[in-house]
Amino acid sequence: MKLWDKGFSTDKKIDHFTVGNDRELDLVLAKYDVMASKAHAKMLGHVGLITAEEAKGLTRELDIIDEAIKAGDFTIEEEFEDMHSKIEYLLIQKLGDTGKKIHTARSRNDQVLVAMQLYLKDELAEVKSLVKTLFDLLLELAEKHRKVLLPGYTHLQIAMPSSFGLWFSAFAESLVDDVHFLNAAFKAADQNPLGSAAGYGSSFPIDRTFTTEEMNFETLKYNVVAAQMGRGKAERATAFGISSVASTLSKLAMDICLYMSQNFNFISFPNELTTGSSIMPHKKNPDVFELIRAKCNKIQAVPNQLTVIINNLPSGYHRDLQLVKEIIVPALQDMKACLEMMHFSLKEVQVNAEILDDPKYDYLFSVDTLNELVKNGMPFRDAYKKMGAEIEAGTFQPKRDIEHTHDGSLGNLCLQEIRAKMEKAIIL
Amino acid sequence: MKLWDKGFSTDKKIDHFTVGNDRELDLVLAKYDVMASKAHAKMLGHVGLITAEEAKGLTRELDIIDEAIKAGDFTIEEEFEDMHSKIEYLLIQKLGDTGKKIHTARSRNDQVLVAMQLYLKDELAEVKSLVKTLFDLLLELAEKHRKVLLPGYTHLQIAMPSSFGLWFSAFAESLVDDVHFLNAAFKAADQNPLGSAAGYGSSFPIDRTFTTEEMNFETLKYNVVAAQMGRGKAERATAFGISSVASTLSKLAMDICLYMSQNFNFISFPNELTTGSSIMPHKKNPDVFELIRAKCNKIQAVPNQLTVIINNLPSGYHRDLQLVKEIIVPALQDMKACLEMMHFSLKEVQVNAEILDDPKYDYLFSVDTLNELVKNGMPFRDAYKKMGAEIEAGTFQPKRDIEHTHDGSLGNLCLQEIRAKMEKAIIL
Amino acid sequence: MKLWDKGFSTDKKIDHFTVGNDRELDLVLAKYDVMASKAHAKMLGHVGLITAEEAKGLTRELDIIDEAIKAGDFTIEEEFEDMHSKIEYLLIQKLGDTGKKIHTARSRNDQVLVAMQLYLKDELAEVKSLVKTLFDLLLELAEKHRKVLLPGYTHLQIAMPSSFGLWFSAFAESLVDDVHFLNAAFKAADQNPLGSAAGYGSSFPIDRTFTTEEMNFETLKYNVVAAQMGRGKAERATAFGISSVASTLSKLAMDICLYMSQNFNFISFPNELTTGSSIMPHKKNPDVFELIRAKCNKIQAVPNQLTVIINNLPSGYHRDLQLVKEIIVPALQDMKACLEMMHFSLKEVQVNAEILDDPKYDYLFSVDTLNELVKNGMPFRDAYKKMGAEIEAGTFQPKRDIEHTHDGSLGNLCLQEIRAKMEKAIIL
Amino acid sequence: MKLWDKGFSTDKKIDHFTVGNDRELDLVLAKYDVMASKAHAKMLGHVGLITAEEAKGLTRELDIIDEAIKAGDFTIEEEFEDMHSKIEYLLIQKLGDTGKKIHTARSRNDQVLVAMQLYLKDELAEVKSLVKTLFDLLLELAEKHRKVLLPGYTHLQIAMPSSFGLWFSAFAESLVDDVHFLNAAFKAADQNPLGSAAGYGSSFPIDRTFTTEEMNFETLKYNVVAAQMGRGKAERATAFGISSVASTLSKLAMDICLYMSQNFNFISFPNELTTGSSIMPHKKNPDVFELIRAKCNKIQAVPNQLTVIINNLPSGYHRDLQLVKEIIVPALQDMKACLEMMHFSLKEVQVNAEILDDPKYDYLFSVDTLNELVKNGMPFRDAYKKMGAEIEAGTFQPKRDIEHTHDGSLGNLCLQEIRAKMEKAIIL
Repeated sequence: MKLWDKGFSTDKKIDHFTVGNDRELDLVLAKYDVMASKAHAKMLGHVGLITAEEAKGLTRELDIIDEAIKAGDFTIEEEFEDMHSKIEYLLIQKLGDTGKKIHTARSRNDQVLVAMQLYLKDELAEVKSLVKTLFDLLLELAEKHRKVLLPGYTHLQIAMPSSFGLWFSAFAESLVDDVHFLNAAFKAADQNPLGSAAGYGSSFPIDRTFTTEEMNFETLKYNVVAAQMGRGKAERATAFGISSVASTLSKLAMDICLYMSQNFNFISFPNELTTGSSIMPHKKNPDVFELIRAKCNKIQAVPNQLTVIINNLPSGYHRDLQLVKEIIVPALQDMKACLEMMHFSLKEVQVNAEILDDPKYDYLFSVDTLNELVKNGMPFRDAYKKMGAEIEAGTFQPKRDIEHTHDGSLGNLCLQEIRAKMEKAIIL
Repeated sequence: MKLWDKGFSTDKKIDHFTVGNDRELDLVLAKYDVMASKAHAKMLGHVGLITAEEAKGLTRELDIIDEAIKAGDFTIEEEFEDMHSKIEYLLIQKLGDTGKKIHTARSRNDQVLVAMQLYLKDELAEVKSLVKTLFDLLLELAEKHRKVLLPGYTHLQIAMPSSFGLWFSAFAESLVDDVHFLNAAFKAADQNPLGSAAGYGSSFPIDRTFTTEEMNFETLKYNVVAAQMGRGKAERATAFGISSVASTLSKLAMDICLYMSQNFNFISFPNELTTGSSIMPHKKNPDVFELIRAKCNKIQAVPNQLTVIINNLPSGYHRDLQLVKEIIVPALQDMKACLEMMHFSLKEVQVNAEILDDPKYDYLFSVDTLNELVKNGMPFRDAYKKMGAEIEAGTFQPKRDIEHTHDGSLGNLCLQEIRAKMEKAIIL
Repeated sequence: MKLWDKGFSTDKKIDHFTVGNDRELDLVLAKYDVMASKAHAKMLGHVGLITAEEAKGLTRELDIIDEAIKAGDFTIEEEFEDMHSKIEYLLIQKLGDTGKKIHTARSRNDQVLVAMQLYLKDELAEVKSLVKTLFDLLLELAEKHRKVLLPGYTHLQIAMPSSFGLWFSAFAESLVDDVHFLNAAFKAADQNPLGSAAGYGSSFPIDRTFTTEEMNFETLKYNVVAAQMGRGKAERATAFGISSVASTLSKLAMDICLYMSQNFNFISFPNELTTGSSIMPHKKNPDVFELIRAKCNKIQAVPNQLTVIINNLPSGYHRDLQLVKEIIVPALQDMKACLEMMHFSLKEVQVNAEILDDPKYDYLFSVDTLNELVKNGMPFRDAYKKMGAEIEAGTFQPKRDIEHTHDGSLGNLCLQEIRAKMEKAIIL
Repeated sequence: MKLWDKGFSTDKKIDHFTVGNDRELDLVLAKYDVMASKAHAKMLGHVGLITAEEAKGLTRELDIIDEAIKAGDFTIEEEFEDMHSKIEYLLIQKLGDTGKKIHTARSRNDQVLVAMQLYLKDELAEVKSLVKTLFDLLLELAEKHRKVLLPGYTHLQIAMPSSFGLWFSAFAESLVDDVHFLNAAFKAADQNPLGSAAGYGSSFPIDRTFTTEEMNFETLKYNVVAAQMGRGKAERATAFGISSVASTLSKLAMDICLYMSQNFNFISFPNELTTGSSIMPHKKNPDVFELIRAKCNKIQAVPNQLTVIINNLPSGYHRDLQLVKEIIVPALQDMKACLEMMHFSLKEVQVNAEILDDPKYDYLFSVDTLNELVKNGMPFRDAYKKMGAEIEAGTFQPKRDIEHTHDGSLGNLCLQEIRAKMEKAIIL
């Protein structure tokens, strides 16, 4: 990357440094710029800043560009700084002076803001949908394996009986909390910033309610300075949302990696989901889950990345804000890939039904055995002493036919209630 | 802190290392442990695990402890590990064996979880209330100074006219986004975890719906493993919420510090809110705002602190989780202090009404002057050329009587709409 | 913390917000302020800004204050903002006008800078000494248990034979890397900033080389603006250093917690170092190691805390910098406590010598068995096929008398070389 | 990225998820794999594990591959998982069975470790060299503009006279501290890990001292488990180093952006280094410096990204570690680009020599004027009163011919001493 030795011109050097990989990222965002440009063109026609004819021409050409994007035919060549320049170029090429009018009463900053927020809304909706798919699988697995017991650990020490029913559905219920953060992020993005221009509004009599409805935003970000301050803030809001999901997936992946170890041997996966070696036939390396864990951990570092960039900047636009794009776009792609991959792999999980046959797990039942004595009328202290004595004497007989009946316990998983909670939280 | 040299016994050393400043933090949390203990005692009576008489005795004594806490008379001496031990001790002292029964069908882990979530709910409600108070002030200031113009910057370069109306209310509208995250955090905390025991439930036939209603939780965290996984997660959810608020306050404080500099001289504050020196009479150091900025930045680092601690831990309780308390409690106290201090100080702000008289701000009006020509029918290219020529010739006359009319612009602040948005978002 | 309701005066409110817990922290730092004040007083006498008599009086009284600090008798009452005010007060009380002269040609900022850097140097030296003590223990344990085998894991899957010799000494050698960062931090702190005054130097003809020698700094931070920029930067340098150590301790603690689980059962500790329950006699909760892990993880978040506070601040002093003190001081105390506690506990480790007797570890030896065939002349492909067939047929006989001879392998730990490396790196 | 809908086979899906952008990153690392492979081949010949002929064949072919890499002709096609596979494929294609022997007594993990450490060493050396180039420029600018005064700020309030000499050289001296961290990172990387195999060594009698010398490592990472633990740790060490440099550059960029604002107007840059608008001719947007600031801030978030990924993982290899590559490689490229771009741009800086002519800066001189009175014998209290009175009466005449003579002050920059300090610290 020793740019400066290569005989580049000054312009070239600076272009390379300042544009970065924006063109590549913009291919993901272009459809949203088109969407916003259409709304803007219609609004300009609506308020009379351009003629109805001009508005019609602009929307028609934007539709054509949109088709090209969908077909994968849209490209941003080196001579264009970004998608916005390329799209304007195409409009001017087709419509001449009318093409130039699309830029009436808006600014580049405006365009980036609105395109990014439309993008975030779509991505957040997709993440939510993938979360729901994983949630459904987790409940299904909980139902299917609800009777298979598992040691429950505290301090990584064998503690109390748990079950696959509890284990799978715990992650399902945890995802509900994460959805609240996806919702909050969605609300932050769901406010039309278009019309803020360079961050201080415009003297043109634009109709922001019109574009709000046209683009299907719930409301406006009214204050134009607030709209501009949303740059970076909306992305961090999204990062909080996906961080929350990622923390749940990361913990699930950690459990899976541990439970696949020969020292636990609680679950397994088909060979095609693991890597191994023919001379170490026991080895089933959980690469997929390790990568889900690592990618989800990387996602959890994103809020801080954004904070370190935008923090302590005074209000008003700074070029620094360009960098948030190259952080949030890959993070969203990673998030979706992790959700898909977790679903894709977890549905193949094989559960070991005989885990608790191993006598090392006998003590798991000591608390329940004690409770049984208490429930049968023995004072707690006496029951405790009796059991302590039996354990010391090696005569302790664990009561293995445990009965947990309260809401959310292993005998009463409340899967329907958990499903209802998710359905209330998630609005797809 | 060379503990080991001081002739401490092993127990003492370990106690010092493991307990840390828990006792101090627990003074803040004790009332919530009492609240949950009362609900638990009533429930035990309700399902018949203790007698009605015993339940009554327990709640009566808990009320007395609650009074002591309110009066500031509750203490946790060195011989008690934490508030839970002290409260149990008090109950047993008064009620003998009945006092011991409070611990039927619950565990320490349970107690910490539920007390912390009750605490977080209260704190989040208080933070929201303080946010609303600051929001009201910001709108009031926006209204009061709505006609006073201010330079708007992009890249820290003088760009477009802005106004104090826009500036104050921008932070108000930004706070609405933050409230969505406070709400999400509240929802994460507003699920009764009591009954999860050590994280795997209990064989006692407890009634978790009863305690949920008793403690005024919106719903249960049904799955007991999920309830346990909420430890750390609820705190991080709260940290996301207050981080969001803190980022808004930090930016406002940064603007204030800049605008108080002699190089801007946009605003000022009474002497009692600044520090200075009699031989540098111009100096009005904005210590209060610098500290708000710094404390809010420190708050923004809290989500990551929590992540680094809880990340990659397998499911189930680990002692590591004790540390989240010593991070979130001071962060909430800082958050509240910053909100109060910002309100307390900002209400004294003195606005310089003549900022734009300085000719260095003339170019602020060039875009609007250009737009005016365009609106009056001159083609954009021609208007642009004309203005460029005037500027070069030094004959440019800025049109200072700017008129911005669209929603959210400096001529049309939409303060009512912003207020309505906040009122929809915040539920106090 | 609803300060404002309590009828506090404005001054009181602001004092409470701005001073924070500075007085408490300053008790730790006071001896360094005295040290620097003495050097400053001597220098003032040396260059003739005060008389020799005055210099003598000042150093004498500073010695008395130093004695009080050592004896634990130094206090900072509410009427003093910080240690600097209190020390000046004491000097003036004793020496009248001469006491005031200590402040000639220096500023508060100066004093804080130099006291903090002296403090950091001492703390870093102490951390290094504790690291060395732990290093020695790790090598000792490696030597003692060098023949006891342990499964080596990749992907948490049983992979290759390892040994306690390897395991203990791996952490020892890792600590050498960490020492390089402690050294770098020490160098950052070991540059005299005194004389920078408010960050722009002074018109007094002070002799900074004199104070540099007097305080035993290796060199000056020459540039006064650079000296001021060191505030925050020196603390972050220290944070990098202790973060590095903390990451090694955290990983060791994680391994210990895992290896103490019944699912591994590789090591154990005496009861007084664990917590448990008489009805779950198997339970040996590794609270101490969980807390070392958590505290070390918290330390690892410190560099980022500092970055978020100081980042994007223009050069020159800002009050924000006050907050770095309340972050770095407890972090250093935690670091020292974790190092001491790890040493204190780890020396009691009990190693299970029969781990590999369990047949589930047989496959550990498959690679070595294969290598043996290859070394004996069988082509790799043939050896590989033969072993694969044996494993499939269940006739595989692992060659358990493994012989690893190369440098750093389990048969040749190179403990002396590792010790030499540490001794070269660490200069105590 | 909805992989799973596209009719991909299972293998394909998993490949896509697990390989990621590794092939692209490996193009940067391939030369280091070749370098290590050559050393390994020679060593195998040296100890007799392969014949001298075979060793010669392998090194010859590796040289050819090295040439291809240098010429930009080396590619990693989709059928190869990574560079290692491709290089092995090329060796086998040319040398048949001999080609396969390169993998004797080493593992993939081994290869990645050693290639990454060789890469880090080279990159760190290059970063140091770029730091030195920038340092030289800063001293040159300090010398050139040493007499031009500048206001010095505290709390962003006008405080004391500073100078461009001080300002430029302050960043130079700060870079010396950063070099200590680059050195520490270099030491962490400069230890040969080759021979650690999968992290537990090998039963082959390899000669690790031979490869250490061959690859020019200062020493071995002896312990094979420690060598494996270096994965992630060496990268984070590098991240600490570049974070330190980045914080200095970020602050310099922040100052530059501020000083270019019309509200300061201290410095300027030629048009080709700024962006602007012909109707806002005053506008000189400092995009380059804003992007240096933002990229350097992003770099400062890298240590935490790595920590969040590797933290709380037990010892031994995990696939998670693959992700550190995709974080550290772009960070190093950004670091180098920022250093080059800062040098490239800063050398064009234009300094405003008349800043202090503006009377708003008069009070800058009040402290020096006061000191002058004191130096001339007036008691401090009297001098202070006199000046306060003059200032209040508006008769204050600042003494502008200030004389600062002490080491590191604006009249005595000690540039030679700062240069000597850097030369002692940096070993290129």
